[in-house]
Amino acid sequence: MLQHTTQIRVRYAETDQMGVVYHANYVVWMEVGRVEAMRAAGLSYADMEKDGVKVAVMGIEVDYRAAAVYDDLVDITIKVVEANLRKMRIEYEMRRSPSGKLLATGSTRHLFLNNELRPVRCPEKYFQIFLGAL
Amino acid sequence: MLQHTTQIRVRYAETDQMGVVYHANYVVWMEVGRVEAMRAAGLSYADMEKDGVKVAVMGIEVDYRAAAVYDDLVDITIKVVEANLRKMRIEYEMRRSPSGKLLATGSTRHLFLNNELRPVRCPEKYFQIFLGAL
Amino acid sequence: MLQHTTQIRVRYAETDQMGVVYHANYVVWMEVGRVEAMRAAGLSYADMEKDGVKVAVMGIEVDYRAAAVYDDLVDITIKVVEANLRKMRIEYEMRRSPSGKLLATGSTRHLFLNNELRPVRCPEKYFQIFLGAL
Amino acid sequence: MLQHTTQIRVRYAETDQMGVVYHANYVVWMEVGRVEAMRAAGLSYADMEKDGVKVAVMGIEVDYRAAAVYDDLVDITIKVVEANLRKMRIEYEMRRSPSGKLLATGSTRHLFLNNELRPVRCPEKYFQIFLGAL
Repeated sequence: MLQHTTQIRVRYAETDQMGVVYHANYVVWMEVGRVEAMRAAGLSYADMEKDGVKVAVMGIEVDYRAAAVYDDLVDITIKVVEANLRKMRIEYEMRRSPSGKLLATGSTRHLFLNNELRPVRCPEKYFQIFLGAL
Repeated sequence: MLQHTTQIRVRYAETDQMGVVYHANYVVWMEVGRVEAMRAAGLSYADMEKDGVKVAVMGIEVDYRAAAVYDDLVDITIKVVEANLRKMRIEYEMRRSPSGKLLATGSTRHLFLNNELRPVRCPEKYFQIFLGAL
Repeated sequence: MLQHTTQIRVRYAETDQMGVVYHANYVVWMEVGRVEAMRAAGLSYADMEKDGVKVAVMGIEVDYRAAAVYDDLVDITIKVVEANLRKMRIEYEMRRSPSGKLLATGSTRHLFLNNELRPVRCPEKYFQIFLGAL
Repeated sequence: MLQHTTQIRVRYAETDQMGVVYHANYVVWMEVGRVEAMRAAGLSYADMEKDGVKVAVMGIEVDYRAAAVYDDLVDITIKVVEANLRKMRIEYEMRRSPSGKLLATGSTRHLFLNNELRPVRCPEKYFQIFLGAL
């Protein structure tokens, strides 16, 4: 199955007055991790949408273990853990770099949708990517 | 236990190119729901932080049922489902107004922290609010 | 010309580690002010987009005078200062409520665009709103 | 004077239902450009804040020339154009990579503040960076 690690740098805009990263921003990072995993496998999510297939988010979970702070480098590891032609489940680990300190774990559930936002079968060439076959 | 419904209006900034609300924004709305529930019970979260007690988010879950779209009025209902002096769990329903269409459900887990972001006992006056005793 | 005041409550998500509102969020509030001014005049921007006319932002300016902080109520006053069938200029004042303390002033420049994001003439019924004739 | 170019990738979260990047996000990118310019010169803004000096934003201007879209690579060029021990003015160009298409220009005005958010003289080691002397 598709697995990949991407790195982001925490932006000032992502902090809050507690002096740490505002919790909703980890959800944005998880999306960055998904997209970069696809790119590393050779296809872009932007092209997938142009082909009329969207990867909609049906559910999210995040468990916060340690606070990311401004200017941290964060390694986002994603791993597709279930995938069929209709839906997919992905797990995430976010770690401070270079210490490897675990900041958060998470998961997302997805449906493949067409331009009218109705369920659709995932085209083979994208499905092979999520399977890690490419 | 504390229970309350708040209404927000979907902002253009909260949409994405799928033409619906970007999924991380529901997490922001859940926080708005928590804060307004406290205010309705007579105390402000801003004052609680000034008193040196923060309600940190340790975990979140959101299940998306139907897409909120630009300019929707969204009713955010929060309900404290578990609370002791150390931690708290809250559940959420987000519904389009006035139809009542269910958009998403969710939950959050919280710890009470002091200014050094270390676990602390929740002061009685705030705890009574979360218990719904005020 | 159209003039209107809307009130928003500062969200935790809008703060940053300086302990004040992150500066880009005022730009979001200015958009909220525009949209609510239209609504108060009887038409919704959501409907305008469904009619195939978008109000694109071509330029923004914000001058920060005093920092908005978490949980502030902010009055956003907008005033259309120039408008023709092609473009429009709007000015803004943001003040803490109820003190009236000036937090920021700003302006935005807009073009009317069609669904292909090409310049288009503003339909009369919307133009009359911006002129303050409705 | 300090000058530097940084590259970011447009996130899905940064788009809106117009199918382009929501205009307030360019303001976030300009901040990323500033911070990376300092880092390239050998000092981090995170350390500057730990030293008790903040670079507050007093004004912003952005002129939008062409719309950035999802997944674009954007080169953010920043240039300090005025700087003294009290304040600073920076100009920006944002261009799509690799075409070089101009997406937006902008400027920001800054004051140096201490931890109490009061004006303060910029310490020499940071000031030399903004002057481009390092």
